[in-house]
Amino acid sequence: MENLFENIPDNLPTEQFTDLLKGENIRIERIVSLGHTSPESGWYSQDENEWVLVLKGSGTILFENEGERVLNKGDYLNIPAHTKHKVTRTDPDSITIWLAVFY
Amino acid sequence: MENLFENIPDNLPTEQFTDLLKGENIRIERIVSLGHTSPESGWYSQDENEWVLVLKGSGTILFENEGERVLNKGDYLNIPAHTKHKVTRTDPDSITIWLAVFY
Repeated sequence: MENLFENIPDNLPTEQFTDLLKGENIRIERIVSLGHTSPESGWYSQDENEWVLVLKGSGTILFENEGERVLNKGDYLNIPAHTKHKVTRTDPDSITIWLAVFY
Repeated sequence: MENLFENIPDNLPTEQFTDLLKGENIRIERIVSLGHTSPESGWYSQDENEWVLVLKGSGTILFENEGERVLNKGDYLNIPAHTKHKVTRTDPDSITIWLAVFY
């Protein structure tokens, strides 16, 4: 049985991205962050919709048109395709685990 | 901001099913169980694939062809469409929270 909270490396020089499921119209990904953020310049703007849920720690997502949203454990939101956004903060001292469903 | 661990009723005479996201080819659902199981006779066998993750508590899923799998916090598995299965046990004294992605 695979577990979402296991197989997390001790060192995280960069964010860790792990595909948990890959289907025809769907991808479920775990993202583990430790103080990581998006690059300062530019935005993420992807072709897929993304539903994102924080399961440990916390992170802040900045949306071009809506300002910042802070996600704590259990918080989730939907990011429609082509919505410009970036991660501006994750916890610096302990890991943040995100579950992202791209569809 | 909506939170997966909030809005859980004090009384759960039956399981609680909440759609968190509904898209064209996807539905994300939270299921809250408290000792509930599937009906004793018959199987679930659905047209969609289902990816399921336990986020609190524990539950046991019986598969017609594979026997029982116990899911604890963080455990996840994929149930392909038309795979006969049923829930044979959830924690009796505290809630179990499932996240199910139908796709």
